[in-house]
Amino acid sequence: MINKLIKKIEETHAPIVVGLDPMLSYIPSHITDAAYKEFGETLEGAAEAIWQYNKAIVDATYDLIPAVKPQIAMYEQFGVPGVVAFKKTVDYCHEKGLVVIGDIKRGDIGSTSGAYATGHLGKVKVGSKELKGFDEDFATINPYMGLDAVKPFIDVCKEENKGLFILVKTSNPSSGDFQDRIIDGRPLYEWVGEKVNEWGKTHMGDSYSYVGAVVGATYPEQGKVLRKIMKNSFILVPGYGAQGGQGKDLVHFFNEDGLGAIVNSSRGIIAAYKQEKYAKYGEANFNEASRAAVCDMIADINGALEAAK
Amino acid sequence: MINKLIKKIEETHAPIVVGLDPMLSYIPSHITDAAYKEFGETLEGAAEAIWQYNKAIVDATYDLIPAVKPQIAMYEQFGVPGVVAFKKTVDYCHEKGLVVIGDIKRGDIGSTSGAYATGHLGKVKVGSKELKGFDEDFATINPYMGLDAVKPFIDVCKEENKGLFILVKTSNPSSGDFQDRIIDGRPLYEWVGEKVNEWGKTHMGDSYSYVGAVVGATYPEQGKVLRKIMKNSFILVPGYGAQGGQGKDLVHFFNEDGLGAIVNSSRGIIAAYKQEKYAKYGEANFNEASRAAVCDMIADINGALEAAK
Repeated sequence: MINKLIKKIEETHAPIVVGLDPMLSYIPSHITDAAYKEFGETLEGAAEAIWQYNKAIVDATYDLIPAVKPQIAMYEQFGVPGVVAFKKTVDYCHEKGLVVIGDIKRGDIGSTSGAYATGHLGKVKVGSKELKGFDEDFATINPYMGLDAVKPFIDVCKEENKGLFILVKTSNPSSGDFQDRIIDGRPLYEWVGEKVNEWGKTHMGDSYSYVGAVVGATYPEQGKVLRKIMKNSFILVPGYGAQGGQGKDLVHFFNEDGLGAIVNSSRGIIAAYKQEKYAKYGEANFNEASRAAVCDMIADINGALEAAK
Repeated sequence: MINKLIKKIEETHAPIVVGLDPMLSYIPSHITDAAYKEFGETLEGAAEAIWQYNKAIVDATYDLIPAVKPQIAMYEQFGVPGVVAFKKTVDYCHEKGLVVIGDIKRGDIGSTSGAYATGHLGKVKVGSKELKGFDEDFATINPYMGLDAVKPFIDVCKEENKGLFILVKTSNPSSGDFQDRIIDGRPLYEWVGEKVNEWGKTHMGDSYSYVGAVVGATYPEQGKVLRKIMKNSFILVPGYGAQGGQGKDLVHFFNEDGLGAIVNSSRGIIAAYKQEKYAKYGEANFNEASRAAVCDMIADINGALEAAK
């Protein structure tokens, strides 16, 4: 799957991923009105609205991008119907040929992490059958519980040729509360990066590992250091756009081969029509605004990479 | 809800929680056979089996215990139908008057953590309505991303009078990979404990905080230290029984008032009939074996607390 991700990045010339993190407040009223008319102001109505919104954005952008990253929290907020919409979104993106990164940030001990890995990336045995639960291609995971939490995911990834992005240095302001604390002269996130590099060697694709890392666009200096520590790992970079990261901040997340990073934007793409820059599209053409924002993001990042050569 | 949890612990004289972490391999064949007959060897069939299994165990034990802790990973492994079974289990336990601790170990940045908090503990606004998603009473959360990850949960807990257990020192063997690393002379888990204590002061119940901690039974010495650091916090203690913890290891997780900790057992209770000790019940009476195991666990812990007085 890391090989497929790289192939798709090369084909699209777009080292980006669109974060499908729908909030009801982003969704144009013609979509929510239609959904509530059919299902009422219910969790099912909300789930229908986010599914229709996602579908329109995917239809308008899938030919430009290698991957999407649905954030499962935005679906879980609507309970079971929300989770149904998550699964519909995953399946639809697969139909469109996209790589799906499940932003699930799971992590637990041994058999419990195994259950998450099975449900999101693998197959569960039911009687004589082996069945897929959510079936994403990659998942983000939380390393706080150590190797026990990570290994069951790596084991499932080896069976399924799927991959991981492990949280190393997250994009949020308080990520430093624990991640920046100094241990033997180096911040915790560097130690986690060292482990990601070590774990990554156990499951290599053709040129990069199936085990990647999450490092926030908002911390470019740290990204530069972590790029060197995790030589073989792809870095998933959240925090572009709405959180403040720009193309020029991101060049050091990439390797000299122009690969090694994939930059996520969520709100900046899916709610582009709310920005002054794309206001001309209007609410009715929100999906066209998203397409324009994807084009601009690709140009910004590729321009920065060219300029840095 | 922390007041309700304490009241129920006092009424039952049982500082324990039953972990509803069903694996298909635990479930007696008369239950799986019936479920597969109705739904086939499908995810729906597996979900029906875990729901019927849970229901039988809850029916056999609810009068003895204050709380249950369903581990959502064990449900997510069966995709959407598994999540439906999780929700049915939460609702049924509420009907039976039990406090429900959602073992979800979520954690993300700002608005995303807010979405998890809303979905699991709060209400989401859909049009003019405010609706509950999963509606647990407590949730476990992962602190790796810092205060940004935790604060949205605390905010929702304040609105809803609900609570949290934050991962501090987990019960698994490799929990030390990062949690034990030394920062300014103290292990990371102590620094997380200090933060839990600080965060806990912002949302107090009558005698304890709504913000608790997770500390594994397998680390009694660390539990002793953390008990002192987090004076006002309840400690949720996993790792009893199958993972190796015993009553006598646990006395220092409690305060002198006999409160302050709630000890979880999952496999040791729900799959008790597989142990030699409870084999006489047979597979057919698995729920009676669970009841006997609950009684023994309560006696073990209360005995240890008495002996330590």
